[in-house]
Amino acid sequence: MTGTSTIDPMAFFRPKSVALVGATDKSGWSVATFNNLRVNGFAGDVYLVNPKATEVHDTPAFASLADIPAAVDLVYVMTPIGVVPEVIRLGAELGTRHYVVLTAGYGEVGGEGAVRERELLDLAEELDVTILGPNGNGFINAADGITPYGLPIPQPLIAGSVGVVLQSGALASSVLSFAQSRNIGISLLVAMGNETVMSVTDVVRGLVADPKTKAIALFLESVRKPEEFAEVARAALEAGKPIVALKIGRSVKASRTAQAHTGALVGDDKTVAAAFEQLGVIRVVSLEDLIITAGMLAATGPLPGKRVGVVTPSGGASEIIADRAEDEGLDLPEFTDETTARLREVLPSFATPNNPLDVTGYVLLDRELMGRALQVVAADPGIDFVMMLQDLPRQTPDPQLALELYSRNAATIREASTPIIPVGNVLTDINETGRMIQAGSDYPQVAGGIEHGLTALGHAVRWSETLRNHRAGRQQPPQVTAAFPDGLPERRGSWSEASAAKFLAANGVPMVPAELVSSADDAVAAAERIGYPVVVKAAVEGLEHKSDIGGVKLDLASAEQVREAVEQVLGATARAGHEGAQVLVQPQRSGGTELLVGVVRDPAWGLTLAVALGGVWVELLGESALRVLPVAQDEVRRAIGSLRGLRVLQGARGGEAVDIDELARVVTQIGALAHALGDELVALEVNPLLVSAERIEALDALVTWAAE
Amino acid sequence: MTGTSTIDPMAFFRPKSVALVGATDKSGWSVATFNNLRVNGFAGDVYLVNPKATEVHDTPAFASLADIPAAVDLVYVMTPIGVVPEVIRLGAELGTRHYVVLTAGYGEVGGEGAVRERELLDLAEELDVTILGPNGNGFINAADGITPYGLPIPQPLIAGSVGVVLQSGALASSVLSFAQSRNIGISLLVAMGNETVMSVTDVVRGLVADPKTKAIALFLESVRKPEEFAEVARAALEAGKPIVALKIGRSVKASRTAQAHTGALVGDDKTVAAAFEQLGVIRVVSLEDLIITAGMLAATGPLPGKRVGVVTPSGGASEIIADRAEDEGLDLPEFTDETTARLREVLPSFATPNNPLDVTGYVLLDRELMGRALQVVAADPGIDFVMMLQDLPRQTPDPQLALELYSRNAATIREASTPIIPVGNVLTDINETGRMIQAGSDYPQVAGGIEHGLTALGHAVRWSETLRNHRAGRQQPPQVTAAFPDGLPERRGSWSEASAAKFLAANGVPMVPAELVSSADDAVAAAERIGYPVVVKAAVEGLEHKSDIGGVKLDLASAEQVREAVEQVLGATARAGHEGAQVLVQPQRSGGTELLVGVVRDPAWGLTLAVALGGVWVELLGESALRVLPVAQDEVRRAIGSLRGLRVLQGARGGEAVDIDELARVVTQIGALAHALGDELVALEVNPLLVSAERIEALDALVTWAAE
Repeated sequence: MTGTSTIDPMAFFRPKSVALVGATDKSGWSVATFNNLRVNGFAGDVYLVNPKATEVHDTPAFASLADIPAAVDLVYVMTPIGVVPEVIRLGAELGTRHYVVLTAGYGEVGGEGAVRERELLDLAEELDVTILGPNGNGFINAADGITPYGLPIPQPLIAGSVGVVLQSGALASSVLSFAQSRNIGISLLVAMGNETVMSVTDVVRGLVADPKTKAIALFLESVRKPEEFAEVARAALEAGKPIVALKIGRSVKASRTAQAHTGALVGDDKTVAAAFEQLGVIRVVSLEDLIITAGMLAATGPLPGKRVGVVTPSGGASEIIADRAEDEGLDLPEFTDETTARLREVLPSFATPNNPLDVTGYVLLDRELMGRALQVVAADPGIDFVMMLQDLPRQTPDPQLALELYSRNAATIREASTPIIPVGNVLTDINETGRMIQAGSDYPQVAGGIEHGLTALGHAVRWSETLRNHRAGRQQPPQVTAAFPDGLPERRGSWSEASAAKFLAANGVPMVPAELVSSADDAVAAAERIGYPVVVKAAVEGLEHKSDIGGVKLDLASAEQVREAVEQVLGATARAGHEGAQVLVQPQRSGGTELLVGVVRDPAWGLTLAVALGGVWVELLGESALRVLPVAQDEVRRAIGSLRGLRVLQGARGGEAVDIDELARVVTQIGALAHALGDELVALEVNPLLVSAERIEALDALVTWAAE
Repeated sequence: MTGTSTIDPMAFFRPKSVALVGATDKSGWSVATFNNLRVNGFAGDVYLVNPKATEVHDTPAFASLADIPAAVDLVYVMTPIGVVPEVIRLGAELGTRHYVVLTAGYGEVGGEGAVRERELLDLAEELDVTILGPNGNGFINAADGITPYGLPIPQPLIAGSVGVVLQSGALASSVLSFAQSRNIGISLLVAMGNETVMSVTDVVRGLVADPKTKAIALFLESVRKPEEFAEVARAALEAGKPIVALKIGRSVKASRTAQAHTGALVGDDKTVAAAFEQLGVIRVVSLEDLIITAGMLAATGPLPGKRVGVVTPSGGASEIIADRAEDEGLDLPEFTDETTARLREVLPSFATPNNPLDVTGYVLLDRELMGRALQVVAADPGIDFVMMLQDLPRQTPDPQLALELYSRNAATIREASTPIIPVGNVLTDINETGRMIQAGSDYPQVAGGIEHGLTALGHAVRWSETLRNHRAGRQQPPQVTAAFPDGLPERRGSWSEASAAKFLAANGVPMVPAELVSSADDAVAAAERIGYPVVVKAAVEGLEHKSDIGGVKLDLASAEQVREAVEQVLGATARAGHEGAQVLVQPQRSGGTELLVGVVRDPAWGLTLAVALGGVWVELLGESALRVLPVAQDEVRRAIGSLRGLRVLQGARGGEAVDIDELARVVTQIGALAHALGDELVALEVNPLLVSAERIEALDALVTWAAE
C-alpha cells in the first residue's frame, strides 16, 4: 500500500498548522475541536474553512483551503460526506499530505458507505496522502499540546508517557477521563476511526520510536493486519516498551457485535491470545487495568523479578494483598535475618516483622514509620521490588506537613536501589488535594487500589520476564530448511502415512520404525524382524483417516494374525476406492502418553502450532497449548509445561518422568518444519506423538498440501 | 455467653447519650471522635470525662462518670489500658450497659495483652454489659447521625442502606471513602476491633433485623463462630438481605498473616468457600467489589433472572460488556421481533438493533435516544433486567439541560416494569457535578464501571437464584434418623467394612452385595452364588486400610483362586495383628466411574461432605465438591454437577449417562446420615462409590467413631 508505507506517524501528529474544513457553529464537534486546539497549548496556526460563512466560532473563516495564505500541515475534515474527496484532492494539490476525517457514514454503515470507504482508500493511494479515520475523532498529542480532537477534552490534560490507540471513539473519552483521574499522563492518544488508511500498527510503530512514550495502551476490536502487528510488537519488545491491549472477542457474542460494528472479522480468540502471549503483548480485560498497567510500566520500567516485599500500615490490607499476590504468581519471601533485626529496631514492639509487613496503626502517631520500614525492606537482598501501600491524601488538615512527609518518602523511593511501587487501598480519584501533594512532593505514580494494582504488578512482572528472555536471545525461533528425500510424491493433496513419516523422519522428527510392504508375506517377514506385537496400517496417498475405513489393525501377535490383518486392510482400502495400496508394519507401542501435535493455518495469523493431550483427555481437560509460528523452543517448552494434564500424568504414573526438554525440541522441530514449508502447507499433524521416559516417537503423521 | 446473648445490637448503636472517657486534646482519636459526634447530626448529649482536665476540646469536662448528671447510654473508653476495667465497673454501677473500647494493647499484642483481653471478657460477663472492641474505632450510625468513631470521617457522610462490618480498623476508612466516592450510602458501619465480646454475628443479626439496611458488607479475617454465622446467614437469606463478604485467607500466606495479626485461626479456605456458597453469602476478592456489589443489591433487590438486555451508546463498550457478561454467566438473548421492529423506529438507520445494543454516537445529537431505546428494550419479554451504560457527568456545560435529561431517564427507569440498572464506563469518583445531577434528578445508583459493574451483576444474579431456591424450599436438608440394625459392634474406633456396609445399607445407601464368611469353603460357596469374577476382602474391626496389608484380592475367577485368596487374606490380617478376621466376598464390578464420597469433621464448620472423582482423576483435576452439613439434595446436585470430570466422562464414554439425580440422592443420604450421627462421628467414607448407567453402588465403606 503506497500511501501507508510512507506514513511517518510522528510527523503526522506534530502539525505546525491545522485547517478545520467544514467548521460550523452548528456542530458540537466543530466547537469542541476548535476549542481543544485553543486551550491545550497549540502554538501553531488554526484555520477555519467554510464556504458559506465568513465567521465561525467568532473567528474569521476562509471560503476554501485555496484561500489560506500559508502551508497547512494537517487538514481536519468535517464536511458532508459527499465533498470529502474534493477537499482532500484540493488539499493534496496545495501540498497537504495529512488528513483527519471526522465525517461518518462510511464502512460502519455498510452499503454505499462501504463503497465510499474503498474510494477514500483509492484516493489516498492515488494522491499519496495519509488519512486518520474516517469516522474518527482525531488525536490528542498531549506531549506537544496539539489536539485536533472532536470531543471536549476534560481538563487538565496531563502530558506523560503512555501512548493510547483506540479502535473506539466513544471509549476514548472514558479512557482519557480515567487516566486523568489517576494523574496518569498521555503522550499521544489516537482514535482510529474506521482505520481505512492509517492503521493501528502504523501508530504503534510511531509510538515505539517516540522517546516520550514509554508504554503503549491499545483498545482493539480486531487486529486488521496480524503480520504487521507481530512485527511491530517485536519492535516494541526490542525497544523495551510494553504494549498493553484490551482486545475484545473472548466471547462469541462480542465477536459478532464487533463484526456488526466495524465489518472486521475478529478472528479466533485463542489464536489471538497465543499470539499476544508470544509477542509479549499484555492482555487485559478492563479499561482500568489497561490504563493502570500501562501507567505503572511507563513509570517503573521492567521489574527485576517476582519477589515482592510488601509494606503496609494495615493488617487487613496486607492480607488482601497476600491473597492477590498469590493469584498473580508473585512471591512474598521471608525477610532475611538482618532485615528482620533492623525492622525490629524501627517498628513498634507489637509489630510483627514479616512479609507482608504491617507497620501497624502507629503510623498515625509516628509519621516517619512507613518511611523507615521502607528503607529497611528495600535493602533486603531477597526481594526484587517493594510494594508500598499508601494513597495520596484526599483531604489534609495540614498541607505543609503532608508535603514534607510525602517529599521524604518520595526521596526514599528515588534513592532506593530496589524499585518501590506505591499502591493505594481502593480505586478512587486523585483529587485536588492529592494532585497538589503529588506535584508538590514530586511523588511517583500511585497505582489505583490493591485490586488493580496487584493485577498490574502481575502483568508487569510477567512482561519483564518476557523481555529478559527476549534480550537473552531465548526467543529466537529455529530456522530450518525442509529436506525432501528421494521417492516422495508430489506436494499435493494428503500424503500417505508412509510418505509423511519418511518426510518427517528426514527432518528430525522421531518416527516409529516402519516397513512398507505390498503383500501379506512381506508383512509377516517385517513383523518377524520388528518383533510382535505389531500393527498393520493402510498406506495409500490421499487417504486421510485410515481408521475410519478399517485401515488400521492393532494387537497382532502372530504371523497368522498379520496375514489376516493385511488381507482385511487391503480389502478395505480397495472397497473405499483406493488403488495400489500398500501396508505399513510397525511395532505396537504400549504405555506412555499420547499427545496431539498439529499445525494448521489460521486465516489471520497464519500457521499455528497446537499441542494437546490426546484421546479422552482432550475432551476432559479441554486444554491445548497454542502458538503462532514461528516459535522458539523456549516458548514451546513453556507451552508444554502449561498443559496441566501432562504434568500431573507424569507424576501420577509414579514412573520416570518424560524428558520435557527433548519433547520441546521435537515439537519445536515440527513447528519449524511447517513454518519452512510456508504457503505450500495446509496442515501437518502428528497424532499421536507417544511420549514416555524411554522414548518420544510419532506413531502416525498427516501432511496436507495446498495444491490439490 | 451470658453477656452476649442479651446483646440488642440496634439499641447499642442508637445511644441517646455518649460519654468519652479519657478524652484529651493530646489524642487525635479523641479529637476525631468528639468532632465526629458534633458534625454528623447527633441530637443527643456528649459528655467528656478526664480526671486531669476541666476542659477538653474547648468543652467542659467531668472528672468522672459519676459526676455526669444524666443517664449515659454508651461509654466510649479511651483511657490507658490499666484503668479500662474500673471505668467499665463504674459505668455499669451507674447503669450504662454499652461500651466501645478504643484502647489497644490487648490480644493483638499477645502475652500480657491476651490475659487482659480474657479478663475483659470475664468482666463483661460478670457485669452483663456489651463491649465493642477493644482496640476498635467504634461505629458510624449514618442512618441516625450517631458517630462515636475514632478516626476522621470524610465528608459528606451519606446515609443509605448498606450495613458494613469490618474486622479491620484501618480498612474501614478506605471502605468508607470508596462508598462515598460512588455516592453509596451506609446505614451502619462497625469496626469490630478484637471482637472480644460483641461479635460480627451479633452485629449482622442486628442488621438483618434493621429495616434501613438492605444489604450487608463484611470484611472478614476469620469466622470466629461458624455455627452462629451460619444461623445468621440463613436468617439473612430468609429476610431477603444479601451478605457480601471479602474474606481473606485464600492463600497460605494470608492465613498466616491473619493469625499473626489477630491470633485467630483463619480456617480451611475451601471449607469456608463451600459454607459461603451454601449459605448464599456472596464472596468477593476486592474492596471495590465489596461495596459496589452490596450497593447494587441494596438498590435493586433480587433480580428475576440472568437474561440481560444491554443498552449503550458505544460499540466498543458493548463488546467489552459482552465478553464480561459471558465470564459472569449472564445471557444476552436476541431481542424479539417486536422489540427489533420498535428499535428500528427509534434508532438512527445505521444502528443495528442487536443485544448488546449500541444506539451509536448519535446520542450526542439526539439526547433522547438512550431513553427511547431503554423503554423499548425494557419491554422485551425475553429479558429479566436491563443494563444501561451511562455515567453521571463529571462536567457539564449546561447543568439545567443535564438535570432535565437525567430526570427523564430516572423516570423511565422508575416506571419500567423490568429492572434497569445504570452502569458507568470506568471506575471514577462521582464528583460534585455528578452528585448534583444525581440528587437533582433523583437518579438511581450508578455502578462504578463496566468491570466491577458486571462482576456485581454476576453476583447479584447468582444470589437472586439462591434466594429463589431458598424460598421454593429447595434448600431444606433432609432429616433422617440413623437406624442401627442388630449385630453391629459398639460405636468406637473404626468399623470393619462388613459392619460399615451393613449400617449404610440399613440407612438407604446402596451397597455392593456381599457375603461375610469365615472359611475358604464358605467363600467359594458364596462366590458360586454371586457369580465370578469376585473379590475377597479382609473383614475385621479396627482395620482401616485393608489394601495396605494385602487384605484385598481382586479378579478371582475360579474356586481355586478364591481359596488361595482367602488364605492369603487371612494370613495377612493375622500377621498384621488382627485376630478373628473374616472375609467379605463381593462381585467384581467393572466399568463405571469411581467417586470418592467422604464426610470429615472440620474444626470450625463441623461435618463436611466431599465428593471427588477417584484415582488418578483426583490428582489430575484436583477438584472436589465440598459442602458443609447439613446440605439439601438440590445443593448436592449442584455440587456434583460442578465436577467437570464427571460430566465429561459421562459424555466421553459414549454410553448412557449416569442418573445424576439418583446419584445426588445417594450422596445426600450419606451426608444426612453423617449429620444425624453428629458428634459421635469422626469420619464416614465411601470409596469408591461406583457410578454407571446401570447402577450406583458403594464398593467399600469406612466408618470411624469419636470414641476410641
